[in-house]
Amino acid sequence: MTTQRVAAAQERLTDVDADGLVLFPSVDMAYISGFTDEPMERHLFCFVGRDGDPIFVAPEMYDEQIRDTSHVTDVRTWADGDDPLAHVEDIADELGFRGGHLLVDDRMWARFTHDLRATLPHATFELASAVIEPLRLRKNADEQAALRTAAAVADRASVAVRELGVDAIGLTEAEFASRIESELTAHGGNGTSFDVIVGSGPNSAKPHHRHSDREIEAGDPVVLDFGTRVDGYPSDQTRTTVFAGDPPNKFTDIHATVCDALEAGVAAVEPGATAESVDAAARAVIENAGYSEAFIHRTGHGLGLEVHEPPYIVDGNDRKLEPGMVFSIEPGVYLDDEFGVRVEDIVIVTENGCERLNDSPRGWQSL
Amino acid sequence: MTTQRVAAAQERLTDVDADGLVLFPSVDMAYISGFTDEPMERHLFCFVGRDGDPIFVAPEMYDEQIRDTSHVTDVRTWADGDDPLAHVEDIADELGFRGGHLLVDDRMWARFTHDLRATLPHATFELASAVIEPLRLRKNADEQAALRTAAAVADRASVAVRELGVDAIGLTEAEFASRIESELTAHGGNGTSFDVIVGSGPNSAKPHHRHSDREIEAGDPVVLDFGTRVDGYPSDQTRTTVFAGDPPNKFTDIHATVCDALEAGVAAVEPGATAESVDAAARAVIENAGYSEAFIHRTGHGLGLEVHEPPYIVDGNDRKLEPGMVFSIEPGVYLDDEFGVRVEDIVIVTENGCERLNDSPRGWQSL
Repeated sequence: MTTQRVAAAQERLTDVDADGLVLFPSVDMAYISGFTDEPMERHLFCFVGRDGDPIFVAPEMYDEQIRDTSHVTDVRTWADGDDPLAHVEDIADELGFRGGHLLVDDRMWARFTHDLRATLPHATFELASAVIEPLRLRKNADEQAALRTAAAVADRASVAVRELGVDAIGLTEAEFASRIESELTAHGGNGTSFDVIVGSGPNSAKPHHRHSDREIEAGDPVVLDFGTRVDGYPSDQTRTTVFAGDPPNKFTDIHATVCDALEAGVAAVEPGATAESVDAAARAVIENAGYSEAFIHRTGHGLGLEVHEPPYIVDGNDRKLEPGMVFSIEPGVYLDDEFGVRVEDIVIVTENGCERLNDSPRGWQSL
Repeated sequence: MTTQRVAAAQERLTDVDADGLVLFPSVDMAYISGFTDEPMERHLFCFVGRDGDPIFVAPEMYDEQIRDTSHVTDVRTWADGDDPLAHVEDIADELGFRGGHLLVDDRMWARFTHDLRATLPHATFELASAVIEPLRLRKNADEQAALRTAAAVADRASVAVRELGVDAIGLTEAEFASRIESELTAHGGNGTSFDVIVGSGPNSAKPHHRHSDREIEAGDPVVLDFGTRVDGYPSDQTRTTVFAGDPPNKFTDIHATVCDALEAGVAAVEPGATAESVDAAARAVIENAGYSEAFIHRTGHGLGLEVHEPPYIVDGNDRKLEPGMVFSIEPGVYLDDEFGVRVEDIVIVTENGCERLNDSPRGWQSL
C-alpha cells in the first residue's frame, strides 16, 4: 500500500510543480513511509523526490525501527555528535533540491524548517499537504472497513456504560472515563483515539473538557465523547446522558434540538454538496430554536489516520464532498455554568448520500 | 511565577535584539503563559512584545481554559469560520511586529510559520529558544524540589518491581510495564513521564524499544527505564535487571563497565565543565572496555518541563555547566540481537559538583 502511496505522491508533485517532499515524524510520514513515531528533538526526515525511492535521514538508534516498519530501504543514519545536516546536503545534491521547490511536512517543527532554510538557502518552501491531503481525503475500502469497525466498538462501549444508570451517580468523571476505556478494550478496540471526555453538570458546557475529579450527580447532563482505534483508524462519537434524576430546565428541548440538527446535517450530505452546506444545515436547526450563540464550534471534522483532519465541516469551507470522505457531524449547545449537549455521529460519503457509522441510541435517558 | 517569567523573557528579547515572541501550544508556551495543551490544528498563538502584557489569539472554545490556567488576560478569540489571521494583523500593528524581528516557538508547525510569513511578509523570523532556553536551563528551588520528589517516587517504584524476582518470569513486557505504572501511582506520581520501557532479552539491545508482548524469560537482561511526574516535573531513571537464572556470557562484565561509566560521568560534573566533557568521561570507560561501537547514543539529556531538553550531554556540545542545570547520565552498551545494558541517574549541578537524585540499587540482581 505504501509504495503505491509514494507513486501517487510523486505524480502529484509533478502536478503541483514541486521537486520534493521533506517529511518529519507525523501522520503524513506514516502515510507515505509506514514509519510511525512521535515528533522528536533529533533530526529525522524522509525525502521524496519526483522519482526514485524515498530516503530517510535518521538518528542511528532509529535505524532498526525504520527498517521494521517502513518499505523505505535507503536510510542514512547519524550518530549523536555527527551533523545530520551533512546528510541533508548530500541528498539535496542527489535529488536536485538545492534550488528546488520543496514541500515540508505541515507539522514539521520551526526548529527544523529553520535548519532546512539555512542548509538550502536557494530552495523555496511550501507545505506538503498540497500533495498528501488529496491522497488522504478519500478513504479506500480497507480504510473504510477499519473506520466502520472502530465505530462499532465505540458504539458498544457507549451502550455498556450508559447501562450503568443510577450506578453512575457518585462516580467521578475520571472513574467513569476509566470504565469507558475498559469497555473499549473489552470490545476489541486498541486504546483511546483521544483523551476521553466525560463532562458532567457544568463541565458539560465546556466542549474541550476532558475529565476531572467531579462526581456525577443525579440530574446532571453528562457529555460522553470518546473513541478507540482499529487497525490504526479511529472512532469518535458523542452522546449526552442523564443517568438518574430530573434533567435541568430546558434540557430536554435542547437535547431534541441538537438531535434534530444532527439529522439535518446527515440529510445534507451527498457528493457535490459543500462542506459548509452541511454545517449550515445543522446550524439552521439550532438557530431556529434560538441557540445560535450557544453553538460555538464547527459542525464537524474529517476522520482518518487522525481524529481531526480535512474535510472540516465549517462555514467558509466550499470544498465539495466526494465519495469516500469521512467526517463527524456533531452539533452542540453550551450554556455557560449550566450545562451542554452534544450528539455526534461519523459518516462516510457514498455515491448518493452517506453511510452512518454509529447507531447506538441517541436519547438522553440511560439505557 | 509566570509573570516573572514574562519579565525575564522581555529583558532577553532586548538583549538579543528581537521584537517579540510568537508561541504555539508547547512547553515554552506553558512556561511563559501557564496555558498547557497539545499542539492543535486551529490557530492558537501567544504574542509577547518587548513590553506590555502578552496577548493570546485563540479559538473561542479555548477562552475559558486559557483564563483558568494563564495569567494572561488579553485573549482575542475567533470562532470557526472567522479568519484568525485578522487578529494576527491587528496585533502586529499594535506591537510593531510588521517589519519586526520575531522569534517563533521552536515547535510551531510549518503550517503556522507559513501563515505567519504570509501575513507578515516584512518581518524576519528566528527561534524563540534564543530567549526561553536560557531561562528554562537553570531550575529554581521549586523546580528542583519537584524533580527530587519525582526521582524518589521512581526509585521506590523501581525497588518495588525489582522485588518481584522470579515472579517476573513469564510476565509479558506489557504486563510488567503496567505494574510499573501502578507502582508509580501508588507512590504518589502523576502518570508516566514517557512510555515505559521494558526491554527483555534481545529487546534490551534496542535503546528506544518500549514494551511488547514478549514474555520475560529466565536469564534475560531486562532494561527498565521509566519515570513519573510530580507538580509537572518528571523523573527518568534506568536499571538493568536479571530476575532469575544465569545472565548471558559477557553480561556481568558489561554491566560493571556501564556502572563504572555512570560513576565516571557523575564525577565529571561541576560548574564550568562542558556538557561534552561529561559525555567523554563516561564514554572513555566504555571505550577502554572495548565497546565504543556499542554505545550508540549520547550520554544524557536535560530534564525539566520536558523529559528531553537542553543541556544535551553529547560530543560537540561545549556548553558550560551551571548550578541548577539538571540532566541524565545514562551510558549503555547494546549488542544487536543479544542484549543491552543501560543504567541511568539524574543529577542537579551544584556549586561544587552535583547532587544525585537517584539512589535505588544499581546492581543487576533482583532485589
